[in-house]
Amino acid sequence: MLHFTHGEFHERLRRTKEKMVQEGIEVLVVTDPANMNYLSGYNGWSFYVHQALIVIIDEPQPLWIGREMDANAAKVTSWLFHEHIIPYPDYYVNSNTTHPYDFIGNILKEIGQSKRVIGLEMDNYYFSAKCFQRLQKALPQAVFKDSTNLVNWVRIIKSDTEIEYMKRAGQIAVRAMKVGIEAIDVGVRECDVAAKIFEAQIKGTPEFGGDYPAIVPLMPAGEHTSTPHITWSDETYKPNTTVLIELAGCYQRYHAPLARTVTIGEPEEKVKDLSEVVIEGMESALDVIKPGITCEEVERAWRKSIQKRGYQKESRIGYSVGLNYPPDWGEHTASLRPGDQTVLKPNMTFHMILGIWMDDYGVELSESFRVTETGYELLASAPRKLFVKHAGKKLWPGGMGA
Amino acid sequence: MLHFTHGEFHERLRRTKEKMVQEGIEVLVVTDPANMNYLSGYNGWSFYVHQALIVIIDEPQPLWIGREMDANAAKVTSWLFHEHIIPYPDYYVNSNTTHPYDFIGNILKEIGQSKRVIGLEMDNYYFSAKCFQRLQKALPQAVFKDSTNLVNWVRIIKSDTEIEYMKRAGQIAVRAMKVGIEAIDVGVRECDVAAKIFEAQIKGTPEFGGDYPAIVPLMPAGEHTSTPHITWSDETYKPNTTVLIELAGCYQRYHAPLARTVTIGEPEEKVKDLSEVVIEGMESALDVIKPGITCEEVERAWRKSIQKRGYQKESRIGYSVGLNYPPDWGEHTASLRPGDQTVLKPNMTFHMILGIWMDDYGVELSESFRVTETGYELLASAPRKLFVKHAGKKLWPGGMGA
Repeated sequence: MLHFTHGEFHERLRRTKEKMVQEGIEVLVVTDPANMNYLSGYNGWSFYVHQALIVIIDEPQPLWIGREMDANAAKVTSWLFHEHIIPYPDYYVNSNTTHPYDFIGNILKEIGQSKRVIGLEMDNYYFSAKCFQRLQKALPQAVFKDSTNLVNWVRIIKSDTEIEYMKRAGQIAVRAMKVGIEAIDVGVRECDVAAKIFEAQIKGTPEFGGDYPAIVPLMPAGEHTSTPHITWSDETYKPNTTVLIELAGCYQRYHAPLARTVTIGEPEEKVKDLSEVVIEGMESALDVIKPGITCEEVERAWRKSIQKRGYQKESRIGYSVGLNYPPDWGEHTASLRPGDQTVLKPNMTFHMILGIWMDDYGVELSESFRVTETGYELLASAPRKLFVKHAGKKLWPGGMGA
Repeated sequence: MLHFTHGEFHERLRRTKEKMVQEGIEVLVVTDPANMNYLSGYNGWSFYVHQALIVIIDEPQPLWIGREMDANAAKVTSWLFHEHIIPYPDYYVNSNTTHPYDFIGNILKEIGQSKRVIGLEMDNYYFSAKCFQRLQKALPQAVFKDSTNLVNWVRIIKSDTEIEYMKRAGQIAVRAMKVGIEAIDVGVRECDVAAKIFEAQIKGTPEFGGDYPAIVPLMPAGEHTSTPHITWSDETYKPNTTVLIELAGCYQRYHAPLARTVTIGEPEEKVKDLSEVVIEGMESALDVIKPGITCEEVERAWRKSIQKRGYQKESRIGYSVGLNYPPDWGEHTASLRPGDQTVLKPNMTFHMILGIWMDDYGVELSESFRVTETGYELLASAPRKLFVKHAGKKLWPGGMGA
């Protein structure tokens, strides 16, 4: 069930250990499910209980430590030898008296790692304040270092197989967007449009199926377009409504997000104008992308473009994207924003999302791309425009079947 | 956009403050998105960045502190006055130098809360080890206490409106299960079945739409039935395969989960036998449910029932369920397992999930129920049996439309 070669997993581990050496980390406790997957292949919806992958600098294989009922999933989905898969008993789950990090601390002690320099993903969703307290208590002689995003930075340049998976995700994203835009109409319930988008995301294409994206479709409509992270309701769409759709295709946990804006009926001038500004800004930003450029330079191109038109946007305009699990498809490394001096390199992949949310309306447009040797390549290719729906009019060019 | 009365929100807040007083907490930092929603109504997919609801013992309204672009969502979805909604700038997001808890700490200082006893949800997904470090640094004179699950315990007894929402979720769960079982067949891709289940979950019923469940459908098949938390692949189903389906219906973030086992073709004797054991065990456990019984007594009834048949199961058989967000629909309070002496009361709601996973096969069966004045009531009512699929044979009794 491995979706990458053993060679690729070993290379990932090698690069992780290289960074561990640079930062003086001897034992790395990996709790981010995307990082666990990246290094071991492990894949299951078990991250709602505590679990970890332990990378020890002088051991050839990591250890998987997780809940007993998930140990078989680790055997089935990872490349680890079975003796590297260590289950903890169920009474550690949601307990007031015991905690999985008591168990993890004891294992580290038993295998002689209790006095080492231990790297922790201190700002990961799946490493709570309590996990740290319990681990400190279990290993009083260890030295702890913050290794948040250490593996995330290893992930930032994708292999050719990863790019292929993200392109598949891109194909799924385009299909899901098409289905969504076609379904939106006066009198249709928001949830029925969302249902069709979900179906398209999971069904995928006849050649390959879809995986669940790390974020559900975000579809604010009407006055809610002033805010980007509202999902859907069971209200019906009214005439002259703007709808923002942000979604992703996902293949083997790799994402290609995509956002577009739709209006039901002719848009108000202010929406049309804002949309033009955003499309121009996208083109200006994409134009500068090539290896050697920094993240902040990409943002600057966008900023200049919209400033000419009298707009400004305070939030970042994009971030590194790829392998992930809920609640976020962003990689938490490079961001396209002022001050981020990460230098673009071939096979880095970004989601550039240009959202401008005014007090009572907004427009969104995004593209997922990889950096190539000379510029960029889109991962999901959908018409770049404001979609204006008139009853009975076909919107999407060409004959792509859903 | 409020889905409960102001009175209900005030009652929730009152009971939360009552518990705060009992535990000597003056300021409660609520980071669990379900708890934030429960107390304020706030609803959006923004929990992938740090945010919190601050309950101050002597203030009538909580404060919402979150990312700037989500402040409008707080205005739209919560009952809080707008001056209680405090946005932090975007440069706090995924930054190496600044952290949202620097901002939150400073706000608490500014409003005179820096020397108080502050309760923290220390073991919540959305309160990382780093959040705690930064808050300690910002508020050196505060006294911190672990308040993990304080609000979760307030949530354990549902109001009549909450029960109504969970029953709607139950109707959606039954529809989604029916669609899934009907779609499973030899030669069908797992992802295509998953796509239909998702569609049914989100579409809901003609009367009310569905919301996204906190966990995606879990659908291990074949040898993967030895493990409960695998999702789906794009492989096609083979003859003589067992499939476990665990899913939930969700309405306004309230869940009713449901699990069933399906075989394609006549099951092996061992699967049939295990299924009978599990059905008997379910009935034995449900039979004892009524107010006054403890959680561990429910588990004991199940344990006795399966022991007679020579089986045992080490993991808990259920947990309190209701309002939630990814990655878990469980409430992290009461569990149906040895040692849990929580006393059942009317309008507590549980998901009792009886899974037995052997080395190379498994069976799952679950029911969501509320405790009534005299016993229990199912929230999702689906036939309680092993579903055996033969080509062309209708499986589900009755004529319920999907």
